Amino acid sequence: MANPSVVEATRGERIESAHRGAGAVVDADGRAVLAFGDVERAVYPRSAVKALQALPLIESGAADRLRLSDNEIALACASHSGSEAHVAAVRAMLAKAGYDEPALECGAHWPLGEDEARALARLGRTPTALNNNCSGKHAGFICVACAMGVDPKGYVAPDHAAQREVTAAIAAMTGARLSEEMRGVDGCSIPTYAVPLLALARAFARLGTGQGLPPERAQAVARIRAAVAAHPVTVAGRGRFDTELMSLTGARVFLKSGAEGVICAALPQVGLGLAVKADDGAGRAAQVMIAALIRRFGGFDEGTLARFVSPRLMNWNGVEVGRLRPAGPLA
Amino acid sequence: MANPSVVEATRGERIESAHRGAGAVVDADGRAVLAFGDVERAVYPRSAVKALQALPLIESGAADRLRLSDNEIALACASHSGSEAHVAAVRAMLAKAGYDEPALECGAHWPLGEDEARALARLGRTPTALNNNCSGKHAGFICVACAMGVDPKGYVAPDHAAQREVTAAIAAMTGARLSEEMRGVDGCSIPTYAVPLLALARAFARLGTGQGLPPERAQAVARIRAAVAAHPVTVAGRGRFDTELMSLTGARVFLKSGAEGVICAALPQVGLGLAVKADDGAGRAAQVMIAALIRRFGGFDEGTLARFVSPRLMNWNGVEVGRLRPAGPLA
Repeated sequence: MANPSVVEATRGERIESAHRGAGAVVDADGRAVLAFGDVERAVYPRSAVKALQALPLIESGAADRLRLSDNEIALACASHSGSEAHVAAVRAMLAKAGYDEPALECGAHWPLGEDEARALARLGRTPTALNNNCSGKHAGFICVACAMGVDPKGYVAPDHAAQREVTAAIAAMTGARLSEEMRGVDGCSIPTYAVPLLALARAFARLGTGQGLPPERAQAVARIRAAVAAHPVTVAGRGRFDTELMSLTGARVFLKSGAEGVICAALPQVGLGLAVKADDGAGRAAQVMIAALIRRFGGFDEGTLARFVSPRLMNWNGVEVGRLRPAGPLA
Repeated sequence: MANPSVVEATRGERIESAHRGAGAVVDADGRAVLAFGDVERAVYPRSAVKALQALPLIESGAADRLRLSDNEIALACASHSGSEAHVAAVRAMLAKAGYDEPALECGAHWPLGEDEARALARLGRTPTALNNNCSGKHAGFICVACAMGVDPKGYVAPDHAAQREVTAAIAAMTGARLSEEMRGVDGCSIPTYAVPLLALARAFARLGTGQGLPPERAQAVARIRAAVAAHPVTVAGRGRFDTELMSLTGARVFLKSGAEGVICAALPQVGLGLAVKADDGAGRAAQVMIAALIRRFGGFDEGTLARFVSPRLMNWNGVEVGRLRPAGPLA
């Protein structure tokens, strides 16, 4: 059965395009307070689980031994815009572990942030692996390998000691079986394992509350949440969805976008975890979906999140030509 | 009823995302040789009908009186990449009508082509309306107004004399009623009218063959087709879908992409017109849809269009992580 239509793009009085999708809002015990679409189907969470992938950085003792700052912990959870500030911070983090850019195995790409990409071009430069939006996460993996006393080389492979710790953390938090047939290769070359939305949402309810977690892990998730809440520009960049929404809501919302239309979020104060996937992989649809759910379950008034729930679509002359809006179960 | 799933994005052994859509393949008499999804629903064609919007440029006598080159006629049909060459050509075209950049009412944006945008940034410059992907089309409207002896100012408005000619050409070619309730505002501020895919496909069958058109119009469509076939880089840009596909196929395929997942095409040799719309507005889905249809109905062998029908998805280390592929009625 088709997932429901959940986000519409209007132009004039007509619906120009529409997105289908699925989503779940779940408590730390796994009880769904809302679910629409096929929430049992396993989806690749991609970068939406970077906070889970950062758990070994805390739990291995790497963060303490290398005296990582909150900003560096946030960087390990980031899909950053590749600004000069992001690049400098990743380099400093790598230096604490005794490494530099050549140790990164994520590949190079032009900064995700358009302004940041043009700023780099204006300097007559081309991007390195430090500009890759995942470079902070990769620096974190290198720190974990160091703390474990193993050579970081090859850390992107599923069977590298550091990567096995990362996989184990996701498996424990989601309760999902991360077998080989659930595995794909992510944009930055590490494994990404497909997990049902219900399991992702429960993992984020736990991440938001610490409920159901061993004490050390509950401390680790609290530390990660605090680091991200204190550094919302670090985890994405100016003008980008994750940064703008969390800058507005502070510690009331923890969220992380992934490629292909997945976003996971936690609402610590109400003890809920959320996960959405746009069938077609559209980021704009996932953003409207998660914003609508955050408004509804996070206790925000109508106006506070309006520009995220129903963003205006402007043309090149600054004329509003349409909107995005929640539809179906989210209307 | 939901449109069928027509394009899948895979990662590893799994389907990561999927796109639904509709499409029609029609002859010049309007007989559908293939139709899937709701092809009666009106969709905004956006830039996919630029060739129809360019008809008054030929038929008003503007192209002859201003001695427009084939490259300039192609430019009027373009969603160009905003390169230095595109900008220079638009400026030259405007100059023939006695105007310059301030006459353009499309608004400014950074070049659509990523390389072209970074090249502009590298020069320390910011974009003007000449870089707008629609600037050639707008230069064409200004030429039409001049040929009609009316002030170009305000040419983007639906009731401007030049814009009325444009609307009349689309109405005649599609047979659709372009009433006010079918109208939205496009990215470049001109009207865009929603038209059923069946009617768009028939219009392109006529554009490809001249069948069913008055002699003067049949000549005009042939001139536009020849201009575009001779200048595939002008109508989009290096590395972009329209340019790359038409560079490979030559005059056997005429096609034009529009925003929000619409593409229209003509196969002159077999007398067919094609129109597709991805429900969610994804360009990548529309490209796979139209490429699959062109391969099937255009008499191309399996290999020729393979990289358009099933493009490989590479990560930042150049590793193939998945593919796009036609599905359902297009598999």
